[in-house]
Amino acid sequence: MTYDVASIIASDAFKKAQFILREQHDLLVEQIIELTEIPAPPFKEERRARAYEQKFHDLGLEDVGRDDIGNVLGVRRGRGNGQMIAVAAHLDTVFPEGTDCSVRREGTKLFAPGVGDDTRGLAVLLAFIRALDGAGIETEQDLLFVGDVGEEGKGDLRGVRHLFTEGKYRHQIAGFFTVDGLELEKVTTTAVGSYRYRVAFRGPGGHSLAAFGTVNPAYALGTLLEGMSRFEVPEEPRTTYCASTFGGGTSVNAIPEEVWAEIDLRSEKQEELDRIDAQLHEQIERAVAKENERADTSNGPITADVKRIGDRPAGGTPHDTRIVQAAFAALPAFGFEPTTGSSSTDANIPMSLGVPAIRLGSGGTGGRAHSVDEWIDVEPEESLRGLYAGLATILGTAGMAQDA
Amino acid sequence: MTYDVASIIASDAFKKAQFILREQHDLLVEQIIELTEIPAPPFKEERRARAYEQKFHDLGLEDVGRDDIGNVLGVRRGRGNGQMIAVAAHLDTVFPEGTDCSVRREGTKLFAPGVGDDTRGLAVLLAFIRALDGAGIETEQDLLFVGDVGEEGKGDLRGVRHLFTEGKYRHQIAGFFTVDGLELEKVTTTAVGSYRYRVAFRGPGGHSLAAFGTVNPAYALGTLLEGMSRFEVPEEPRTTYCASTFGGGTSVNAIPEEVWAEIDLRSEKQEELDRIDAQLHEQIERAVAKENERADTSNGPITADVKRIGDRPAGGTPHDTRIVQAAFAALPAFGFEPTTGSSSTDANIPMSLGVPAIRLGSGGTGGRAHSVDEWIDVEPEESLRGLYAGLATILGTAGMAQDA
Repeated sequence: MTYDVASIIASDAFKKAQFILREQHDLLVEQIIELTEIPAPPFKEERRARAYEQKFHDLGLEDVGRDDIGNVLGVRRGRGNGQMIAVAAHLDTVFPEGTDCSVRREGTKLFAPGVGDDTRGLAVLLAFIRALDGAGIETEQDLLFVGDVGEEGKGDLRGVRHLFTEGKYRHQIAGFFTVDGLELEKVTTTAVGSYRYRVAFRGPGGHSLAAFGTVNPAYALGTLLEGMSRFEVPEEPRTTYCASTFGGGTSVNAIPEEVWAEIDLRSEKQEELDRIDAQLHEQIERAVAKENERADTSNGPITADVKRIGDRPAGGTPHDTRIVQAAFAALPAFGFEPTTGSSSTDANIPMSLGVPAIRLGSGGTGGRAHSVDEWIDVEPEESLRGLYAGLATILGTAGMAQDA
Repeated sequence: MTYDVASIIASDAFKKAQFILREQHDLLVEQIIELTEIPAPPFKEERRARAYEQKFHDLGLEDVGRDDIGNVLGVRRGRGNGQMIAVAAHLDTVFPEGTDCSVRREGTKLFAPGVGDDTRGLAVLLAFIRALDGAGIETEQDLLFVGDVGEEGKGDLRGVRHLFTEGKYRHQIAGFFTVDGLELEKVTTTAVGSYRYRVAFRGPGGHSLAAFGTVNPAYALGTLLEGMSRFEVPEEPRTTYCASTFGGGTSVNAIPEEVWAEIDLRSEKQEELDRIDAQLHEQIERAVAKENERADTSNGPITADVKRIGDRPAGGTPHDTRIVQAAFAALPAFGFEPTTGSSSTDANIPMSLGVPAIRLGSGGTGGRAHSVDEWIDVEPEESLRGLYAGLATILGTAGMAQDA
């Protein structure tokens, strides 16, 4: 059994796995197209999940099924003691129901919403399983393959959160890969945490002329926004805030009864996230108090209703962990120059819990993710280079039997 | 010929007119119901206008027709030199297309959207014409009866504005009544002017994390609102401002490209309206400059797009004018205790142009105007008292031939 990436890459078994990945690259492309064309809007991943589950079955994984939240799970047993390395890609896309998901092909380029984020990732997991099986590779730790729900936006990482808080393997997962996005050189080892809010200020409303002088929730919103623009945040750890979407009021000649804003707070460090979170709450209170002091509350005061609509914990994976070391050994072997980076992905959850985790790209190139013009290039040489590096990283983390 | 209200009320002819109003009160109620049930949403008054035009025809008015903007006009000639007293009610309601306008009757109460504002007014004009004709009353000045469009909301008084700026009688109208709402005791002699705006702040947008530091139009809006809350306005002449409706932004994880607000400014005096208007424009400029100074404009600065969506001039009718004097003589004769008041009605236009004008109620009682629960009570005694007072006021303004 070895965890040494150089030895793994040098082995005949790994070479055979590479051969299979190359031989079956067309099948990878076919499966990218097939899965991309099954829409998976936020909270509506089920159709794609069913298709993906069937593929896990067909590949002969064990314990294939969907958990209570809708994640597709399948186990490839190792030799070891039942500890697991999870390898996940997310089923959901950002695109709403009704978006045309048909794939247009131009040469080696595929154009479609979600084709790279993260449908290529889903198909790459299947390619890995075929290569491991075809090369007869045994790992030390079990590999838990996961097609998870709810990575994007309001999904709020609910699939992987469930996996680590309620899922039946939660105590066994010792390492976690999210194969998400294309790009491999930047290995995500820092989880940007975020809190998201819907803040609604409410008041009694009234006619703009007849009730003039009455508290107006719009001015409380104004105080909140004006105050937010003066929030101080560190550059390191990177910490940000954004007042994003707005609404409220019914008519130009009426004091609004409600105005609302959605707000996004982020930080690479949980302490900073909590610090700016406290600033926001203080500013909301100040805004309410100021308007109630300024104007007439005899028909009722301004109140604030603060709903947390997103909660992604910050966290990080130390650089001396096996998973990061494996990536930094495997990537250069295939011509990549790895650096570490921060982002907000499914890996936030394990990182926040102290489970070593990284985000790894699925390889190839592309662009315009989260837009309907999203595209990837599946030109085989570049695409395969990414697959080799990814598989070597996984094997360097889960351990490979040397007699294989 | 007399303009003396006491003489008019004492005349046999006026008594005959009262008799006819009483005799035909049921017809008034029928016509209120008939007209209420023809929907007249903002900018879609045509169906009701056609029906109203037909009634002017049937009553034998002269020069019946619709002008270019959609007002229904009809003339009842006087003896005089062609000067006209206009008596108007508005065709439009605040209710959008598809609102159920059927009238529910409970005893003397009628329930329906728009039944009082201003459909009773429209029907009362018809009752006045019948009473004048039936009593053989001749006036000195021509009476120009008007069912006008666009009084409510975004209609922005376009019907009466047209009447006084483009209409063929614009040089002849020497006095103007808008018979609007029910209540008679408060005679509107001051026109509350208003400017309404849609202010949109725009910027380059961007990802809430990746583009953090970029200018955000939400903070410009915040500065505008916070500044508005500190605007100073006099109590006399009554001057008000209101930030009313809001929107903008596309996603919680994106810096908005546009946020907007609708704003209402009002004053009883044009100078004060213009003063607060200047304050608003200054504050918008300050908000833009402040955000462009605070944050990164390398992808583009914040700009403001300020659209005036409403413009109702302020104005007033001096209390020593014949029209106000007539109201203050006629109302007490029928038990009303008149006071003067201010509001924003079709009378704004003539008042701003120096044409003596008042708003007069159509009589009766009711409530919940501008809501779908709107109702009026057509209990005959109270309803008739209003009709008598209204007709006497009109005759005291237009002059009544004494040999009638």
